[in-house]
Amino acid sequence: MSDLKATIERIRAFRDARDWMQFHNPKNLACSIVIEAGELLELFQWKTAEESETLVQTRRDAISQELADVAVYVLELADNLGIDLLDAIDRKMALNEAKYPVEKARGSAAKYTEL
Amino acid sequence: MSDLKATIERIRAFRDARDWMQFHNPKNLACSIVIEAGELLELFQWKTAEESETLVQTRRDAISQELADVAVYVLELADNLGIDLLDAIDRKMALNEAKYPVEKARGSAAKYTEL
Amino acid sequence: MSDLKATIERIRAFRDARDWMQFHNPKNLACSIVIEAGELLELFQWKTAEESETLVQTRRDAISQELADVAVYVLELADNLGIDLLDAIDRKMALNEAKYPVEKARGSAAKYTEL
Amino acid sequence: MSDLKATIERIRAFRDARDWMQFHNPKNLACSIVIEAGELLELFQWKTAEESETLVQTRRDAISQELADVAVYVLELADNLGIDLLDAIDRKMALNEAKYPVEKARGSAAKYTEL
Repeated sequence: MSDLKATIERIRAFRDARDWMQFHNPKNLACSIVIEAGELLELFQWKTAEESETLVQTRRDAISQELADVAVYVLELADNLGIDLLDAIDRKMALNEAKYPVEKARGSAAKYTEL
Repeated sequence: MSDLKATIERIRAFRDARDWMQFHNPKNLACSIVIEAGELLELFQWKTAEESETLVQTRRDAISQELADVAVYVLELADNLGIDLLDAIDRKMALNEAKYPVEKARGSAAKYTEL
Repeated sequence: MSDLKATIERIRAFRDARDWMQFHNPKNLACSIVIEAGELLELFQWKTAEESETLVQTRRDAISQELADVAVYVLELADNLGIDLLDAIDRKMALNEAKYPVEKARGSAAKYTEL
Repeated sequence: MSDLKATIERIRAFRDARDWMQFHNPKNLACSIVIEAGELLELFQWKTAEESETLVQTRRDAISQELADVAVYVLELADNLGIDLLDAIDRKMALNEAKYPVEKARGSAAKYTEL
């Protein structure tokens, strides 16, 4: 497993070598995250849940690339905003743990508003 | 900065304590990534690029939470597929570096097909 | 069935009474379409395909509202660009009919590039 | 302007000639709407709001096609659920008119919860 800091540094260097910061305002990065997320979902378009399990073998490389595309923009947006993404996840997981108590949420796909 | 491995472990533990793996097939996770990405973009809806720069101060917590929501599902999908996300990003960045040579791409928002 | 022209006129009047055209540039409308589409998909989050069939009975009103939200922005963007949406659909259906010949596409969820 | 009923009939005929109803459950159609919406937004990726205004001239055909793709799935999902889309829009516009009173909403991009 390579290093998260080194990955973020590579994303920054890639952008800055191309002078792209001018395009990478927060709204544009949010647009890019949803665009790439749509491309990831497109790989599963029309597939059943079961087929999606085998697709991850046959289209592994394409899925890996689309996941990376989403992740790159997520990491860059967090980095640009000075947000430590792992800390943000930790804080959000704590909220989720409170919203979805184990005893209520176990085995249920209901939203917390419905629990 | 907390540890990526520990973060992935927390995401797994949260899911398994609630017996949610049954809902987390690859297609459903891809759906969730795009749903959360849409919620992130919603924070910037109708804002100008300039307003999006100040919004990241005034709505910092909301943005941080939505970014975390996207990231959690990205990390989980990669983890479920046995994909090392940082390696996947490294491979994708290498492809991007080849697709967008510095001398051609500098200062341009054109897609590589237009360069 | 009410009248498409009257519907477009109502959308226009709603926007103009609020002086919102200043926010409704093409990019912002495209953002809003994908945001609303994400909210529509959220109604089906974690559901199986089978459950999605019954959900359309139990959450009929919510689905109808989210569909309407997407449709309103699609109609407005087309209207703002002077595109007759039904004509655009007719032209696209002709392209689709050529890309997916009945004899090749019958019963297959494959993309045209894979046929 | 061609006829909405005829357009819906053409979408139905296209699908049924290919025996695709088996793939077109509500969840899959919702996925397809968001995927196509992402492709529409991609045309505006990295563009400023001002550039998006000129893009609608230079990329008119591409925009028209992506809009049509979104619209086709919106019309089909409504049709499959027996929802009259224009009636649904009328009902939603009435809700929007109540949520965004002219005197409060005029010239403001604020959400109704912030008004």
